[in-house]
Amino acid sequence: MRRVDNFNAGPSALPLPALERAQSELCDFEGTGMSIIEHSHRGKAYEKVHFEAIALLKELCGLGDDRVVLFVQGGASQVFATLPMNFLHAGKRADYVITGGWSEKALEETKFFGEARAAITTAGSHVGTPGPEGMQKFTRVPRGAELDVLDPDAAYVHLTSNNTLFGTQYAEIPATKAPLVIDMSSDIMCKPVDFSKISMVYAGAQKNIGPSGVTILILDKAFLATAREDIPTIFRYGTFAKNDSLYNTPPTFGIYLMRNVLAHTLSIGGLEAVEATNRKKADRLYGALDALSDFYSAPVEKESRSTMNIVWKTKSADLDKKFVEEATKKDMVGLAGHRSTGGIRASIYNAVSFESVDRLATFLEDFAKTNA
Amino acid sequence: MRRVDNFNAGPSALPLPALERAQSELCDFEGTGMSIIEHSHRGKAYEKVHFEAIALLKELCGLGDDRVVLFVQGGASQVFATLPMNFLHAGKRADYVITGGWSEKALEETKFFGEARAAITTAGSHVGTPGPEGMQKFTRVPRGAELDVLDPDAAYVHLTSNNTLFGTQYAEIPATKAPLVIDMSSDIMCKPVDFSKISMVYAGAQKNIGPSGVTILILDKAFLATAREDIPTIFRYGTFAKNDSLYNTPPTFGIYLMRNVLAHTLSIGGLEAVEATNRKKADRLYGALDALSDFYSAPVEKESRSTMNIVWKTKSADLDKKFVEEATKKDMVGLAGHRSTGGIRASIYNAVSFESVDRLATFLEDFAKTNA
Repeated sequence: MRRVDNFNAGPSALPLPALERAQSELCDFEGTGMSIIEHSHRGKAYEKVHFEAIALLKELCGLGDDRVVLFVQGGASQVFATLPMNFLHAGKRADYVITGGWSEKALEETKFFGEARAAITTAGSHVGTPGPEGMQKFTRVPRGAELDVLDPDAAYVHLTSNNTLFGTQYAEIPATKAPLVIDMSSDIMCKPVDFSKISMVYAGAQKNIGPSGVTILILDKAFLATAREDIPTIFRYGTFAKNDSLYNTPPTFGIYLMRNVLAHTLSIGGLEAVEATNRKKADRLYGALDALSDFYSAPVEKESRSTMNIVWKTKSADLDKKFVEEATKKDMVGLAGHRSTGGIRASIYNAVSFESVDRLATFLEDFAKTNA
Repeated sequence: MRRVDNFNAGPSALPLPALERAQSELCDFEGTGMSIIEHSHRGKAYEKVHFEAIALLKELCGLGDDRVVLFVQGGASQVFATLPMNFLHAGKRADYVITGGWSEKALEETKFFGEARAAITTAGSHVGTPGPEGMQKFTRVPRGAELDVLDPDAAYVHLTSNNTLFGTQYAEIPATKAPLVIDMSSDIMCKPVDFSKISMVYAGAQKNIGPSGVTILILDKAFLATAREDIPTIFRYGTFAKNDSLYNTPPTFGIYLMRNVLAHTLSIGGLEAVEATNRKKADRLYGALDALSDFYSAPVEKESRSTMNIVWKTKSADLDKKFVEEATKKDMVGLAGHRSTGGIRASIYNAVSFESVDRLATFLEDFAKTNA
């Protein structure tokens, strides 16, 4: 079996033990004579997996009984629409913090349902190398005092904790007076987080915790109780809460594989251990880039650097391309920057090992020498 | 490896070769050093699978260039809402044909978006044994002249081609003057169908063609061109059409496994061969029930009998329970009727072999003798 160093931005690397567990029982789940895929979502075999996934997620994130975990479909892109459907009440306004393409899209969808504004944007905010397009467009998340403009009476404040395209991340989740809603698609469970400050978290599973096709919601039950009930049944978060995310057929295999990933995460020490490895990985890569700042340019401000997506470029698009091609030949894949930003991007999610990152950093150092 | 006779109503049996293909390459897809689950949805490896799935579906269904195949998320239950969002224009009314719980739910969601009516209902229509609840509630689909009430000026006419709970199915798709929209979740690709009469087909994959978490739309391009554009991006079918169902991250593993099922379906002779086997399976089971009509009662009118879900009961709920328990001991699983109908139900979707059905029919015959 061949395995490469996978730096894809999502879908992305998953822990091999979680995949091997799925492989070993794919045609006969726990001796039941059926694949987990062929089991009824109303049967005991699947239900056990379903509720174990919820329990593992609550345990790993340290969630209390005041929080409910839901599994929905459609990706974060669908939550962009269902969030205001559920929580943007008439006469209220939602505040969006714009730090990249995903928060822009979230705001756009919201405008179909009511009033919403870009309360803060960090577009073009990089001191020294501003630029309307490409990697320079967003080079940081907001700083402390900038958050003061957020409306305490907003229906909610929405922010994106990690920006996959631009490689920025909040080092700390800001405190807000209005209910805080966070798109954590690309950094959920990369480290312990105090969920008690957050009214709602949502995340597509396909970066840190599972395959695409499963979307996680973590909701404060008191916030959920304020959700609108005059919208279609299938879009009400309350429908999913009342039915333990079994209102209609869930993506059973996706939830099963996520269960495998979560069980693996617990077995290696939970989110404290995950954070330590992620820190070590990010330090290795940023350290190499900083030491070679005459050759590589990493545009993100240090305080906003992501531990999940690290973006940089060389002096030319041609050299960027050569970098990606040579890395690919060495079995390091998924390094091309997003089509809207160009450059180079290494996504080093939870399942990417320190060894993979170390090989990339070593290659990066060698490449600078050879092409200086 | 243990494999049982799987009569689950959905998620349900899948062809073993499609599962084994997935199993063999689950950790290393085609020597790429990654699982298909870990591949980017923008990369060549996944895109090849994605477009192959679309091509196979078009080939198997005999679809021309005037039809587009889309993959969405959320199950048929979400299409209940997105259908009127896209096609229920202001000033128009949608006609729903009510033949069971799923068409009732589809109508309920529609009322959030505009005017819709139950143009026809077959509830309580069984001559001889009427009853408001349980298995007797719906025992047939509409007959020819009943369809005359459908409004030729309706935004669309909606019907459910096969009713999983009640075991009814249209032998022929009726012709309508207004655009025809069909929920084919539980009988898509059970036989060749003339799609040229149908403006839109939708189906959750988890009965005949794949795992849960993937929903198929087959749209007449001319009908799609009339869809509303003033709704959120993620709910516009046009968004998915313009982006080849890659607007946001699709459920990649689900589409991959569906590709495996479709490739297998083609390899065994396509939908003509599938239909012949399904006919033989249904004949074996209905034949056994009809021969034992003093012991078993199969409430569906003969002209409306489903080849996918066959429902019947004995003289008492206790005996029904005994039937299901004894069958389970013989490795025939998933036979309990739906919680809302009671009784016994065998779902004999495409992947259920004639041999499985024959074993069930033989058991059914023996059970009647023993318990007469």
